[in-house]
Amino acid sequence: MKYVYRFSEGSGSMRELLGGKGANLAEMTNLGLPVPQGFTVTTEACGRYYQDGEFVAPDIRDQVMEYLVWLEKDSGKVFGGTDAPLLVSVRSGSRASMPGMMDTILNLGMNDAVAEGMSALTGNPRFVYDSYRRFIQMFSDVVMELPKHNFEIIIDELKEQKGVKQDTELGVDDMKTLVKRFKAFYSDNKGAEFPQEPRDQLMAAVAAVFRSWNNPRAIVYRRENDIPSNWGTAVNVQSMVFGNMGDDSGTGVAFTRNPSTGERKLYGEFLMNAQGEDVVAGIRTPQTIDQLNEVMPEAYRRFAEIASTLESHYKDMQDMEFTIERRKLYMLQTRNGKRTAQAALQIAIDMVDEGVWSKEDALLKVEPKQLDALLHPQFEPKALKAAEPVAKGLPASPGAACGRVCFTAEHAKAEAKNGPVLLVRKETSPEDIEGMIAAQGILTVRGGMTSHAAVVARGMGTCCVAGCGECVIHEDGGFLMIGGARVNTGDFMSIDGTTGSVYIGAIPTAEAEITGNFNTFMGWADEVRTLKVRTNADTPHDAAQAVSFGAEGIGLTRTEHMFFEADRIGPMREMILSADETERRKALDKLLPMQVKDFEGIFTAMGPRPVTIRLLDPPLHEFLPQKEEDIRALAADMGVDEQTLRERVDNLHEFNPMMGHRGCRLAVSFPEIAEMQARAIIRAAVNVKRVTGIDIVPEIMIPLVGDVNEMRFVKGVVQKAAEEELAGFALKYMIGTMIEIPRAALTADEIAGEAEFFSFGTNDLTQMTFGFSRDDAGSFLDDYYKRKIYETDPFARLDQNGVGKLVKLAAQLGRKTRPGIKLGICGEHGGDPSSVEFCFNAGLDYVSCSPFRVPIARLAAAQAKIKAKG
Amino acid sequence: MKYVYRFSEGSGSMRELLGGKGANLAEMTNLGLPVPQGFTVTTEACGRYYQDGEFVAPDIRDQVMEYLVWLEKDSGKVFGGTDAPLLVSVRSGSRASMPGMMDTILNLGMNDAVAEGMSALTGNPRFVYDSYRRFIQMFSDVVMELPKHNFEIIIDELKEQKGVKQDTELGVDDMKTLVKRFKAFYSDNKGAEFPQEPRDQLMAAVAAVFRSWNNPRAIVYRRENDIPSNWGTAVNVQSMVFGNMGDDSGTGVAFTRNPSTGERKLYGEFLMNAQGEDVVAGIRTPQTIDQLNEVMPEAYRRFAEIASTLESHYKDMQDMEFTIERRKLYMLQTRNGKRTAQAALQIAIDMVDEGVWSKEDALLKVEPKQLDALLHPQFEPKALKAAEPVAKGLPASPGAACGRVCFTAEHAKAEAKNGPVLLVRKETSPEDIEGMIAAQGILTVRGGMTSHAAVVARGMGTCCVAGCGECVIHEDGGFLMIGGARVNTGDFMSIDGTTGSVYIGAIPTAEAEITGNFNTFMGWADEVRTLKVRTNADTPHDAAQAVSFGAEGIGLTRTEHMFFEADRIGPMREMILSADETERRKALDKLLPMQVKDFEGIFTAMGPRPVTIRLLDPPLHEFLPQKEEDIRALAADMGVDEQTLRERVDNLHEFNPMMGHRGCRLAVSFPEIAEMQARAIIRAAVNVKRVTGIDIVPEIMIPLVGDVNEMRFVKGVVQKAAEEELAGFALKYMIGTMIEIPRAALTADEIAGEAEFFSFGTNDLTQMTFGFSRDDAGSFLDDYYKRKIYETDPFARLDQNGVGKLVKLAAQLGRKTRPGIKLGICGEHGGDPSSVEFCFNAGLDYVSCSPFRVPIARLAAAQAKIKAKG
Repeated sequence: MKYVYRFSEGSGSMRELLGGKGANLAEMTNLGLPVPQGFTVTTEACGRYYQDGEFVAPDIRDQVMEYLVWLEKDSGKVFGGTDAPLLVSVRSGSRASMPGMMDTILNLGMNDAVAEGMSALTGNPRFVYDSYRRFIQMFSDVVMELPKHNFEIIIDELKEQKGVKQDTELGVDDMKTLVKRFKAFYSDNKGAEFPQEPRDQLMAAVAAVFRSWNNPRAIVYRRENDIPSNWGTAVNVQSMVFGNMGDDSGTGVAFTRNPSTGERKLYGEFLMNAQGEDVVAGIRTPQTIDQLNEVMPEAYRRFAEIASTLESHYKDMQDMEFTIERRKLYMLQTRNGKRTAQAALQIAIDMVDEGVWSKEDALLKVEPKQLDALLHPQFEPKALKAAEPVAKGLPASPGAACGRVCFTAEHAKAEAKNGPVLLVRKETSPEDIEGMIAAQGILTVRGGMTSHAAVVARGMGTCCVAGCGECVIHEDGGFLMIGGARVNTGDFMSIDGTTGSVYIGAIPTAEAEITGNFNTFMGWADEVRTLKVRTNADTPHDAAQAVSFGAEGIGLTRTEHMFFEADRIGPMREMILSADETERRKALDKLLPMQVKDFEGIFTAMGPRPVTIRLLDPPLHEFLPQKEEDIRALAADMGVDEQTLRERVDNLHEFNPMMGHRGCRLAVSFPEIAEMQARAIIRAAVNVKRVTGIDIVPEIMIPLVGDVNEMRFVKGVVQKAAEEELAGFALKYMIGTMIEIPRAALTADEIAGEAEFFSFGTNDLTQMTFGFSRDDAGSFLDDYYKRKIYETDPFARLDQNGVGKLVKLAAQLGRKTRPGIKLGICGEHGGDPSSVEFCFNAGLDYVSCSPFRVPIARLAAAQAKIKAKG
Repeated sequence: MKYVYRFSEGSGSMRELLGGKGANLAEMTNLGLPVPQGFTVTTEACGRYYQDGEFVAPDIRDQVMEYLVWLEKDSGKVFGGTDAPLLVSVRSGSRASMPGMMDTILNLGMNDAVAEGMSALTGNPRFVYDSYRRFIQMFSDVVMELPKHNFEIIIDELKEQKGVKQDTELGVDDMKTLVKRFKAFYSDNKGAEFPQEPRDQLMAAVAAVFRSWNNPRAIVYRRENDIPSNWGTAVNVQSMVFGNMGDDSGTGVAFTRNPSTGERKLYGEFLMNAQGEDVVAGIRTPQTIDQLNEVMPEAYRRFAEIASTLESHYKDMQDMEFTIERRKLYMLQTRNGKRTAQAALQIAIDMVDEGVWSKEDALLKVEPKQLDALLHPQFEPKALKAAEPVAKGLPASPGAACGRVCFTAEHAKAEAKNGPVLLVRKETSPEDIEGMIAAQGILTVRGGMTSHAAVVARGMGTCCVAGCGECVIHEDGGFLMIGGARVNTGDFMSIDGTTGSVYIGAIPTAEAEITGNFNTFMGWADEVRTLKVRTNADTPHDAAQAVSFGAEGIGLTRTEHMFFEADRIGPMREMILSADETERRKALDKLLPMQVKDFEGIFTAMGPRPVTIRLLDPPLHEFLPQKEEDIRALAADMGVDEQTLRERVDNLHEFNPMMGHRGCRLAVSFPEIAEMQARAIIRAAVNVKRVTGIDIVPEIMIPLVGDVNEMRFVKGVVQKAAEEELAGFALKYMIGTMIEIPRAALTADEIAGEAEFFSFGTNDLTQMTFGFSRDDAGSFLDDYYKRKIYETDPFARLDQNGVGKLVKLAAQLGRKTRPGIKLGICGEHGGDPSSVEFCFNAGLDYVSCSPFRVPIARLAAAQAKIKAKG
């Protein structure tokens, strides 16, 4: 088994084996560019390391040693030698770039003898001992788990002793002192001398890179970015070149185009007489890349030429690192550059204009999730740079918000008249809806990515951070505690729903704006894709919003939120508390005209586009008050006995409301509710068609069906009411169901006999298939991630292995019975790119997602189509 | 389409089309037995009736009329004629006998003119008008929904008027008066005259029979007996013969063998000068069938001969109805006779001895569920006859019990020393266990067939009626209210867990006893079956009990109940409330030796039989107190802060505990719990093997797995602990999982890579697949039955269409990965005969059920094997 490759043995296509960094170093070598030579230990070696119980096998070590010998020969230097010492950098490099992992150890190969030899050789002992003490620091930190700040303390002590302020003020002897003290500190803490043998240093560093693949930050990053844990990382060992050899040396970073705007122009910065980490440390202010042209025109010309070669070669904007050692330019790395959403669109459009990309190439180059940033307000970058988050929650709905803290929906509604507000609640419930609408952002203490707050906020496009457990609300006291600080009602806070960060104080935000580039680009996506994109919308406002984002219909209108509005909740509660059908019908008669209005609004907003409306779904107790004082108030309000009301509320209590009396089960027990809703839908459609002449296409969706008999019964009720309402008027409507219970998927052939469409409710289907409730999973999912049992959140990304099997089975069984059955998805997954791709491949007709995710789904659908063709 | 058959056109094999009664009448006709002729309207006509929206189609009516003409010709009588009037009986008759349906209308065809003609013809006008008024009564009641008791009132009024006490004291004129008053009452209430046209009477009666197929009692009966609702009923129209024509006439019912004991001897009774309904009414005391030999030897001889013919012909004990009209014997019906469990066994064994049945025939003839009656105490039949149930609950655990009412487990435990007690609770929880053991029977107000009380009671073989909502407990007052009556603590009540009936007062019970017949018969079952039968048992006592019933291993030991015992709950709570792993391990160390003792007991009881032990499953909050005062007491007890404890309890609260932090999810979060249990299991097995020399076979079961990574992780923990405990000692053990989450079934191929066995936990699998919780389904399942959406309780009978698909899929996927994987079922369904048959056909290796259901499962397994061969 070959575990090690010289750069010249590899190529850009060997990314899986060599990691991104290694493959690119190989590619640059093959292009004849000036790359300091070295070798890459493969990702397979990393796999072997874990397979062997976190142990570097002798055959891997042997190969590394063999290649080291080659490198010595190639460079004409000797590893651990004193005359022409070879120093190397050691860097991790996986298939995808992963900031969570170990990055770099520089100057490896240094020891007491080498330092002396190099001092003589370079005549610059300060530089050499500075490099040595940096190496001890980096090595101890990343390889030996002796944190860096211990060494910073030693440096500070020395500076105090010497009465100086800057590191640069320390001289040669000081550096030597530091090396001595560092080594002493090391041996005190590790019980052994700092390793002097360069080969031991190297093997320890290689093992540390492998280990860093599984450090907690890397695991979190992988989960957030859908990177499988079995990929592993490669290790790159490269000869050191030195940008800190004097004023004819330097180091820098540059992009072939501007990563913020996309402008076609070299963009970057460099520092003369410096090593890579100095650029990052920010002690000296770097110069812009243009200025290199003034300082060292020859090096600049050569660099610009290489940059252009690389962009043409890779056919994408490049992010490059370089070092100049005594006027000679070396390329240390190149990769496709990360870019903002704005830049991504600009580059895509330019590349197509330049004839470099086809439109399909361009569509594949933009990450769908990036589009979010174009649709939501963002913090002003400068203001954000200065801010420090005080806590982190779940990034539940993207965008940034800043406002005055309010603890109740009423307060938020009132305060919103005076300026932006942030609604902060333990968790939200449907009764909070008006406060949520009024707020710029929503912060909750409990609840996950699919909690009420998260779902509603995403629907409205409002920024939301959910499940921020570090925030403790003292509502009675009118303040909250977070990160040890106290924030009062009315104080400013800021939240970032894209990252989950929470800040005390106001960080100004910049509004989102949709540009011409956006429309051009999305137009390309629409030309390509065949999967339709609908939206989940409960109000005419959301519906109109979604249409403006390109929605081609509504895949899910939830009717329950309509019953929480002030004028509805009364009759709704009357209905629920009715003693018999007669009373219930009386209350439903009051609700009917209001529902008609609701649906008229939505149909008017959607025009000829299809609209799927789901019949009442949640358990009825959600509409009743739970607190003692609210029950008392309601009893007085309704003129019923307090005790009776309490008993009724108690009776509706459920052990597992998720698996209780809800969905079509309500319609089975109280068919008159479904009847009222069916009447309202058809009456509204008729009214709108009469006024506008537009053919309205209502699709009535019966939720939570698990057996064809349920479907048949409720369909009968709906159909009868619909036909009575139509009374011969010509209007087409469909009756279908949501597939959200495993049994519905398993018996989809039977259900398709009655249902004209299936909409996969993958939120509930995920819960039932996994057997856990999203509200309760928070208490153990962290343990699951920690132990690598789950790598992604199944509520965010469709579990193709389990839930996906049911979706495919149901699609296949449904089509067997009813070949033309319309199939869609309306769970949260409808806006997740990988899930959209799955839906396309499973042969679904459409996906439906919250309005602000519609563009993401459109792009993802186009990408899925392109990939399927390839 | 042919909807009507003459008896002579049919045969015994046409049961599906003609119903049981019709097929048997046809068969007897073909055998040349004296059967009053007639015809049968088919079950397909019933199907058509419902298809046409509860309407008898003209072509069905036409065929009935055509056959009526034939019957007139055949009998030489005229329907509605006055000279030789033809009267008929109309009876329902479905494939399976169904007591819930309409039974019989006699004397149909009677009207004013016919009555006059018949009076002249018979010279017995009292008999004729008595028949007429009976006909009006029956017709009004069953066809026109004018309840019978209205007519009884009219009779009582007349008797009072006439100053007589018995109906027999009423004369001809009185009968005529009754006919007049009955007709007047009819027209007052129905707004039309009593139908005089016999053909209209007949068609109305036919429709009424069809309708009765769907009356509420019939629906309930079908559900309880697994009869599909689409079978429908046939209608039998038969010439009347009259047992009430004088002293040379009579009517009776008899069995070819004694239905209580199985004794081979004609058994039955008859009444001279009477019609069928008089035998039922019980006004006159019937004579035994032997006495017929004295009264009418010729008729007796003929009857005995026919009885013998029929038994030989049908090869089973027959239940027959006959009428003697003027010394001539007529057979009105024959069918396989219902029998007690004792009789069933006696007959089976005799029939095999007589060479009539093979052993396999005999095994198929006994209903597995009947065996229950042999294993549990039953009410003494005479005492039961005199008792009237005051309420009904769910028949949650079979057998009968009577005892003094206790409202708490403590009270039951204390009172049990003085005599039998009945534990009556709103619902039971694991803390009630000692009271449940002490009680003769358990009655709960809430909860279904798989509630805690039901499951535990079945496990112990204790009688239980669950979910008796009519019982309202006033625990503080020390009494309960039921059916308007008050019962105090210490008063006697009786319950029947086989029927769900609840009685006030003491009904003596007779102990169950297992006879030689039982052992012989079960021996035959064991010879035939290949499916193994295990038991679910948590204690050595239950395990030993199950072995005595033939259990071949334990399929499920739940470990959670062990932690509720007085000496365990303390350390258990300490463990749960631990702040970190160190504290948790300290508490677990206290539990370890107790768990070792638990498992030693079970292994000792089971010897070399395999024992599957499930790791801790329920959410931890189940072990903590919920009530304010209990929390206070516990805080004091444990020496922790009250507020801290309350918060910890609050934190463990879950929205949907069923789908929360439980099963292997606990082991993922707290591996040390699984480790302790694994140690205890292996240590106990080693200890027992050391002492007894018997090879103990522990099977460690990891619950609630949904992903192979969960299985892999927990298996790792268990394996490590097990190997450490064994330290080289030779003992085989297996590690497997429960398949109880849909995703586990869908990914069973992956999971089988890690699991050595699968045990299908069909209780939870049913809940998750249907998406409803058994604790909450009670609130809507009644509506489902009422609307015929469900016909059987999916928790009692495995849903083969949905859940069964997952079981089959998982079995198939599991075997694909690991061909020898051991497959079993340990849900409640393991003791349900139809589910046992499913498991056999799905290729499972064993079923596991509560100890008292082991014989049922053994017989069902034998039947499944025989049916599969046929």
